[in-house]
Amino acid sequence: MKTVYPGTFDPITNGHLDVIRRGVRLFGSLTVAVADSSRKNPLFSADERLRMVKASVRGMRGVRVKKFDSLLVDFLRKEKANVVLRGLRETSDFPSEFQQAVTNRLLGKDIETVFVMTSPDNFYVTSSLVKEIASLGGDVSDFVPKPVTRKMRSIFR
Amino acid sequence: MKTVYPGTFDPITNGHLDVIRRGVRLFGSLTVAVADSSRKNPLFSADERLRMVKASVRGMRGVRVKKFDSLLVDFLRKEKANVVLRGLRETSDFPSEFQQAVTNRLLGKDIETVFVMTSPDNFYVTSSLVKEIASLGGDVSDFVPKPVTRKMRSIFR
Amino acid sequence: MKTVYPGTFDPITNGHLDVIRRGVRLFGSLTVAVADSSRKNPLFSADERLRMVKASVRGMRGVRVKKFDSLLVDFLRKEKANVVLRGLRETSDFPSEFQQAVTNRLLGKDIETVFVMTSPDNFYVTSSLVKEIASLGGDVSDFVPKPVTRKMRSIFR
Amino acid sequence: MKTVYPGTFDPITNGHLDVIRRGVRLFGSLTVAVADSSRKNPLFSADERLRMVKASVRGMRGVRVKKFDSLLVDFLRKEKANVVLRGLRETSDFPSEFQQAVTNRLLGKDIETVFVMTSPDNFYVTSSLVKEIASLGGDVSDFVPKPVTRKMRSIFR
Amino acid sequence: MKTVYPGTFDPITNGHLDVIRRGVRLFGSLTVAVADSSRKNPLFSADERLRMVKASVRGMRGVRVKKFDSLLVDFLRKEKANVVLRGLRETSDFPSEFQQAVTNRLLGKDIETVFVMTSPDNFYVTSSLVKEIASLGGDVSDFVPKPVTRKMRSIFR
Amino acid sequence: MKTVYPGTFDPITNGHLDVIRRGVRLFGSLTVAVADSSRKNPLFSADERLRMVKASVRGMRGVRVKKFDSLLVDFLRKEKANVVLRGLRETSDFPSEFQQAVTNRLLGKDIETVFVMTSPDNFYVTSSLVKEIASLGGDVSDFVPKPVTRKMRSIFR
Repeated sequence: MKTVYPGTFDPITNGHLDVIRRGVRLFGSLTVAVADSSRKNPLFSADERLRMVKASVRGMRGVRVKKFDSLLVDFLRKEKANVVLRGLRETSDFPSEFQQAVTNRLLGKDIETVFVMTSPDNFYVTSSLVKEIASLGGDVSDFVPKPVTRKMRSIFR
Repeated sequence: MKTVYPGTFDPITNGHLDVIRRGVRLFGSLTVAVADSSRKNPLFSADERLRMVKASVRGMRGVRVKKFDSLLVDFLRKEKANVVLRGLRETSDFPSEFQQAVTNRLLGKDIETVFVMTSPDNFYVTSSLVKEIASLGGDVSDFVPKPVTRKMRSIFR
Repeated sequence: MKTVYPGTFDPITNGHLDVIRRGVRLFGSLTVAVADSSRKNPLFSADERLRMVKASVRGMRGVRVKKFDSLLVDFLRKEKANVVLRGLRETSDFPSEFQQAVTNRLLGKDIETVFVMTSPDNFYVTSSLVKEIASLGGDVSDFVPKPVTRKMRSIFR
Repeated sequence: MKTVYPGTFDPITNGHLDVIRRGVRLFGSLTVAVADSSRKNPLFSADERLRMVKASVRGMRGVRVKKFDSLLVDFLRKEKANVVLRGLRETSDFPSEFQQAVTNRLLGKDIETVFVMTSPDNFYVTSSLVKEIASLGGDVSDFVPKPVTRKMRSIFR
Repeated sequence: MKTVYPGTFDPITNGHLDVIRRGVRLFGSLTVAVADSSRKNPLFSADERLRMVKASVRGMRGVRVKKFDSLLVDFLRKEKANVVLRGLRETSDFPSEFQQAVTNRLLGKDIETVFVMTSPDNFYVTSSLVKEIASLGGDVSDFVPKPVTRKMRSIFR
Repeated sequence: MKTVYPGTFDPITNGHLDVIRRGVRLFGSLTVAVADSSRKNPLFSADERLRMVKASVRGMRGVRVKKFDSLLVDFLRKEKANVVLRGLRETSDFPSEFQQAVTNRLLGKDIETVFVMTSPDNFYVTSSLVKEIASLGGDVSDFVPKPVTRKMRSIFR
């Protein structure tokens, strides 16, 4: 069984990295799937997000990174994967995670969504928070991997 | 007492149809009220949404369909209606439904909001989900009435 | 279609009365069904609760009061009723109401649960609250019908 | 210890005023801090919002009003304040308030966020609601201070 | 890495069985751990619950069943397991599941809690519901494995 | 204005101590009010709980400890206090805190409830958790003040 960890990663945070590490420990390997999500108006282009994820997982064994712009279930079929990994944070919108998982099961009967908790340090770290802090001149180096810190500084000066 | 089932219906789903059927069974007849909602940037124009609702309820007894672009309470007064019907889905944002119902009561003292549950098959069907799936090339025919399936195919190829 | 408003009513509060009034306005008549609930360790016996409900709705047209000690769905069948009325308070445990409604539908396919909101004055009035206040010597006359105030005073001095 | 009550105030409502009054009673004085929030696409410019807040608190002792366009923690440092006041409404998104408070503590160790409840009359009043009602031609004078009513009428005719 | 699926199982339901099947598919094998929980006043003794679980998983490969009366983390250490499996139902008390998972991590640093969703048929099935229905003379054979149906009939006649 | 921090404290935890410290910093002084709560079947008697609180706050300036067995509003009147302090944890039952605060305001018009957040270390520490861990032979010294650790050891061996 192959595992996919999908997301927009706009940008990847320490919380996402934490989920990736837990996924690798549980399942041996996994594919991080960067959703194109252009309809969501992300701050970074899909290619920028892909590059930041790749730079952030450099050296981690068992982690591959791919981009996709289809339904998640179609990407899973193409990858012959049937486990979806998701992280839960204390303040995460549990109902919305649940709805997504149900939807994926409706569209692909054999898809199993597996949730893990991030570490407490990352319960309150979100991509939105990181973008808000950076845009107001704050320091985000405690919340994101180094490659993201650099990229955000280059944007927000 | 006349009953109104208001919504944006962007587009109407099987869940909405299910609520309409329950409303008719409970109250004998009802008016589906399609909100203009142009400030919400709907995918379909108010007239397109009105036409899809009308095509979807064709043949159902006791159902009328109207468009409105005022406050709901003003539409209710014009229609001499004082019951508002709303559907609750398991993952529905209950607080937001509650706030709307309280608001309607603040603005129109004698307005009663009545909630019914959709059938379990429709707990996870939302207009947003349908639009997301269709925009990524997925099949939505399990989630929406036939006239909507046709319309969405014509848009998303 | 006949309507039943079930509950433990330990004791009946102004919030319950408010729901009864709304139900009568919507459906013309209804049966208040006092659940035996002896496994829940109610403060009042089923007969005391029945008497307090009856005294509280005295003079209201279209309201009958009965006791039941079976599954709600079996009571509904016996009464040839298929609409269950429930009140929603802002702080009500929505998930638990939802679970009960789903359960009733699982056990009786044609049962429709209809939710109405209490008036804002009653959003925070619960039987538990009333019992707690009374047991600590507080005045509950703002929260319960007169027959209940008298009964509670006789118990807690 | 100095207290700051931050917000977008787009526009200020009776609920906000209620929180300000409670804050003054608790802490003697406070600074209302109007966030620039231009990235949130507010209806009113920061200066218009500042003027409406100032007009609404005219005559209240101990209340100062300022505008800020930095991180809240940086504004607090500049003001030598370390208490953040926030209002909780029944339907407020508690998780999002909590996340903001945690974030402020992450970014500024000694910052204390203090929550008070608005009065029940204001549990359901939000800036979004006020804008929606006004945009549909409704009367908002029950929900906002007089200077805001006037301003909104001038906009929505 | 060994996996443990802990619970009180008072009694085991089809929802629990569904989680067990998903766990075996994900992890190859797992140990169902029946908590003594005598402080919670279960309906069935720990031995009765153990026997019902064993009878219900008979023939499933990779499933072992054990009883434990210590802290879960101590049981995990004894079993050399470090993955805890839990099922999430739509109406499950997510905060309480989250708190338990955090607690287990506090008490045992290397313990990973993994959540899976039950199938929609089981979103509303709980041990409490099953006991309530059976105690009122209802039929629970749709909600629990055969050995439990028999046992409950023998108790409630 | 005098401040009261009420609770059952069965037993007092590090989270409670954290709230007390924050309250003293905000308001200069406060009274910890140990509710008799004998109807809730606490593990410790009111006097044991009072003694543990007193031992735990020894040496803290501005903190008084009292026992009360009336309605909280009556205790506040007797103490001439009108501010109630409460701590919010991420997983705390916000609706129940809100209901209590509304109730206190219903019963005593001028009572203001003020909420502060505990430190993240204490988001998941509750009296119930502490009792559960201790009863199963676990070590609770990370979660409660020293006097409580000693007391719990003496009880659970």
